[in-house]
Parts: sequence; structure tokens; C-alpha cells
Amino acid sequence: MNDTFLKACRGEQTPYTPVWFMRQAGRYLPEYQKVRRKVSFLELCKSPALCTEVTLQPIDIFGFDAAILFSDILIPMEAMNLELEFHEGRGPVFPQPVRSQKAVDALIVPDPEATVPFVMETIRLLRKELQVPLIGFAGAPFTLATYLIEGGSSKVFLNTKKMMFQEPELYHHLLLKITACTSLYLQAQARAGAQALQLFDSWAGILAPCDYEQFALPYVRSIIEDLRAMTDIPLIYFANNGATLVRHTVTLGADVLGFDWRLPIGDAIRQAGEHAVQGNIDPVALFLPKERLEQRIKTMLADAREARGYIFNLGHGILPETPPDQVRIAVNAVHRCSGR
Amino acid sequence: MNDTFLKACRGEQTPYTPVWFMRQAGRYLPEYQKVRRKVSFLELCKSPALCTEVTLQPIDIFGFDAAILFSDILIPMEAMNLELEFHEGRGPVFPQPVRSQKAVDALIVPDPEATVPFVMETIRLLRKELQVPLIGFAGAPFTLATYLIEGGSSKVFLNTKKMMFQEPELYHHLLLKITACTSLYLQAQARAGAQALQLFDSWAGILAPCDYEQFALPYVRSIIEDLRAMTDIPLIYFANNGATLVRHTVTLGADVLGFDWRLPIGDAIRQAGEHAVQGNIDPVALFLPKERLEQRIKTMLADAREARGYIFNLGHGILPETPPDQVRIAVNAVHRCSGR
Repeated sequence: MNDTFLKACRGEQTPYTPVWFMRQAGRYLPEYQKVRRKVSFLELCKSPALCTEVTLQPIDIFGFDAAILFSDILIPMEAMNLELEFHEGRGPVFPQPVRSQKAVDALIVPDPEATVPFVMETIRLLRKELQVPLIGFAGAPFTLATYLIEGGSSKVFLNTKKMMFQEPELYHHLLLKITACTSLYLQAQARAGAQALQLFDSWAGILAPCDYEQFALPYVRSIIEDLRAMTDIPLIYFANNGATLVRHTVTLGADVLGFDWRLPIGDAIRQAGEHAVQGNIDPVALFLPKERLEQRIKTMLADAREARGYIFNLGHGILPETPPDQVRIAVNAVHRCSGR
Repeated sequence: MNDTFLKACRGEQTPYTPVWFMRQAGRYLPEYQKVRRKVSFLELCKSPALCTEVTLQPIDIFGFDAAILFSDILIPMEAMNLELEFHEGRGPVFPQPVRSQKAVDALIVPDPEATVPFVMETIRLLRKELQVPLIGFAGAPFTLATYLIEGGSSKVFLNTKKMMFQEPELYHHLLLKITACTSLYLQAQARAGAQALQLFDSWAGILAPCDYEQFALPYVRSIIEDLRAMTDIPLIYFANNGATLVRHTVTLGADVLGFDWRLPIGDAIRQAGEHAVQGNIDPVALFLPKERLEQRIKTMLADAREARGYIFNLGHGILPETPPDQVRIAVNAVHRCSGR
């Protein structure tokens, strides 16, 4: 069992720098595309056998130091009594956006073991196969709320912010339900055998820090408190585009803070204090010619040498267009340049 | 003549805080929509009489302390020998993206007086009408390049970054031409009577600071040096989503740094050193109920009290959905709470 990743999460010494990539199981891999030709994205997410297969692919191919459960942050939202569709090239769609008290009232806080048992089954199957730690995950409440309120992705998040600003009680009511659902969901993942949990706050970076503090932070804190009460596995919080939120995110009680590429890793480490740090090379830097990619990784490792614990990752999900050979170059460079 | 804005740009004492809004002449105004029903967006941009009319509208209606030339950052790009289209709801499109040496070679660096004379004519007309200073503007070279390379707007800017990383000489060649064009364009605006100039780096925030330093900063610096040699009007640089770029942007030699809403204004002012600062309320905060909007403005003015010079603005362009009455509330609150 390779526990380098878990040690780095806990700020313990590691023989080399562990590495995994957000969305490492995904569309850039021909092996994944082969599976996807047989089933839709939602069907894939609900099949423990296929989820297990695609989760294992990048571990077997590239030797990543951690696996992350293949799923989507919106899977547990569907279980709240919402219709969810995925359209090729357009992303997720909730045909009935949640914008009224009636719509919020109609949401249930489901028992994940009853509504999304396939996720826990995938975790149990993966634990039998894996020689590296398995990361479970969920979306952070604010990010999940944006999808529900907007009905999908958005550019300026007008409906979400309008609800925050004009109907704060309705917003709070919605977020409490999402938070309860997410907390139960992550607890179930931990019970099923997840060895670390990551909260993805993909849209945190659209908020002014004063609004983040009021409309996003309290719900993340609540989930982390719930998890702390039942497990001691490492908790990772990733606020995308969150460079100006660090003074708030360091108060959350997570073990690891994940960063996108906009904040230099040395700055991230200084601001993260006692936290381990995960990140943060620009996903498009994987398109650099081999020597310059290796040089960039070497520089990042050097800049991260003062970290209490450091996990190499991309600053965002790997792009579908990424050549798998470049992933191999990057993973090998992280390992070689950090002493493996 | 109300010169409060120009004084604030220069860091001089002002009797109250000047305010203008990015895109203050635009779609949220019924008076603007009335003009647009007669002409297309490009026709409007090329009509000095109509540009003058819509530029004046928000000054007359709300009493902003500065006017900004109505135009689009891509107008001078079209003059480089590119086809440019604007599609309702989809934004600008260059049907032939610039991605090859041949495409870069085909670009000309035009004389703005010959190719976009309507812009300078608009400036001359406006100066006869205005009792507040007139701001001219251009896109910053990196931002302009993204539109040319991607062929329009983008989410991850894969083509732009791939050119940066894989064909840096081609990228540099393209940026040099855009920079020359932009420098001549802004010089012509200054000669025509613009009393301040703003460079919009709308997409700077997609770059890691190390890439910004190499692939965006030098071209902005070059333009500012050119302008300094021919005029002493205030120069404003706005890097959207640029909170992690400030250590670089303070070296550019601009008078004023503009900020989006992600960086608290107090932090922006501390990091901006000797610069005047412009910004930065979330455009969606204009949807707050009256009392809370006024409170938020009051807090921002208090947080900005240590600024060497401070210009109240939004952190990004005003949204088309904004109720004009809310703009009136905001402008009045800035004036009243800052002592006018």
C-alpha cells in the first residue's frame, strides 16, 4: 500500500512528492472513451463496475499516487428530487431550476445509502483493487447551489447572486438542505471506505470575499464539523479561483487546501499556514514541450519545498484535449525530481 | 468642468469620490436600446453622432463624473485586416482565427486616423459637449490576442495558451503587431482629445503570474512607455480577475490600477502602493435592496479612505439586466456618502 498521499495530507515527511490530477479518470484517455461509447455519462456514474474500471485506468497507466472516485458532483443533487440531464458539449442541466420557496420545499434530504448506493458500492469495489489511497468527494454547497439555481453552468451567476442579495432567507433555506445532503453523502463515503474526502468549490471564485464569508463559508464549515465528529481521514478543500479567499478558507478546519494556478504555489503555502497544500500547475501547461514541462515541474517542486505537506496536482481538471503521453511525462517528472 | 475624476487619477485631494461604471453606456439603458433598434452594434460603433449620443446618455441621466467613449475593444482589430462579426447573445466572432504564421503575416498595423477615423471624430464631438472628463480606451494586447486566436470568446483559452507554450515566436510576432496597433490607436485618441486612457485586460486573470509576466506584461509596458512619451494624461490599467498579478501590474507605470470585486478594496489599495485605485463593487450588488446597497457602498468608501486617489467603479461591466433606478441609487450614494 502506497500511503505517500495520505502522509502528505497529514503534513508528515514523505520519500517523494505524491501526485494525482483532478479529472484524471476522464475524456483525455482512449481507455475511458472506449467505456463511454457503450453508456451515457449518467449510466456510467451509476454503474459500480464501470466506475471502478475508469477510476483504476489512470492509476494503472500512469502510476498516480491516489485514486479519486469517478462520479459527478451533481449525482447527489439528482437524489434530492431533481431532474438532471447531461448534454454532450453543454454540460449539466437542471430543466427545472430551483428559484422559489415551493421549489426549495420540494427538495428532500435523502439517505445516500438508499438513493445513491452505487457510489458506496463503487468505493467498496475500489478498495479491494487499489494499492493507492481512494479519495471520495462532493461539491461544496455554494457551488452545488449555483447549478440548482441557474439550471446549469453560468457566466455571471445572476440568478444565484440575486437570490443571495434579494431573498437571503430563501437562499439560506436552500443551502441548509444542500449542506445536510452533502454532509450525509460524504459521511456515507467515509463509512464505505474512502480514505480522504475532497470538497470541490468550483465556483467559490465568483464571490467577493465578504459574500463568500456570508454565503458559502458557513456551509462548508458545517460539513467539515460533521465529518470531524465521525472520522479522522484527511479533508481537502479546493476553492477554484480562490486566491483572495484564503484568509477565510484557512479557518475551515480542512487538512489540505487545494489551489488553482493563479496563486503561485509559494504564496499559497505561506498563506495556508499549518495546512498541507495541493496544486497547482495550469492544466494547459501539460501542452508544453517535454523539456519545458519538466523544467516547470521542477520549479514548482522547488517553490513548494517549504510546505508542511505537498501534493502535486493541476490547478483545475485535466482538459479532454490533453495528450496522454504528456501526462506520463508530468507524473514521471514529479516523481523523479522529488526523489523517487 | 468637473475635474474630480482627473484629480483622483493623479492622487490629488478631491471634494468627494468620483464615480463612473464600466459599460455605463449600454444595454441596461432604455435610451441606449432605442438607438440600437435603428442600427447594428458595429454600425453604432462606426457612427460618431450615435456614439456621441449614447456616451452622453448615462452622464445626463445619472451624473457620472467621467464619460467613457462608446466603442468596442475589437474595433481596431478589425482594422488590422480581419473580418469581425457581432452576434446577438454570442458576442464577437472572428470567422478566421489567427493561428498561423501566414495569418499573422497578413495582419497590418494600420494608421488609426485612416482606418478608424470615426473614433477620433467621436472624441472631438464629445469634448464639445461634455462637462466631465472623457476616457478613451483600448483592449490590452494579451486580451485582444485571445479573441484573435480563439476566434471569439473562450472558456479555457486552449488555443491561446497552446500558441504561447508551443509556438512562442509566433505568439510574440502576433503580440508585437497587436501592441503596435494598440499604441498608435491610443496615441490617436489622446491627440483627438481623450483626457484619460484605460487599457482593459479582461482576460489577464486566466494566466498564472509567471505566464502573465512573460506573455502579457511586456506588451502593456511598451504601450504605456509610448504614451508617456507623448502625453501626461492619466493612464488606467484594469486587469480583470488580477488579484494575484498585482506585484507585476504595479511595475507597469500606470497612474491608476483598476480591480475586479474579488480583491477587497483595502487590500487593493495597500498592494497598489503609489497608484490611484479604481473599483470594485460586484456588478450584481447593484441588485441589492436600496438600504443594503447604500450600506455596502458606505463600507467600500470607508475601506478606501487610505487610498492615494480613489475612483468608485464596478468590478466589471454593468450587466444588461440592471435596473437603471439602482444605478441612480448607487451614484447618489457614492456622492452623498463621500461628502458631495
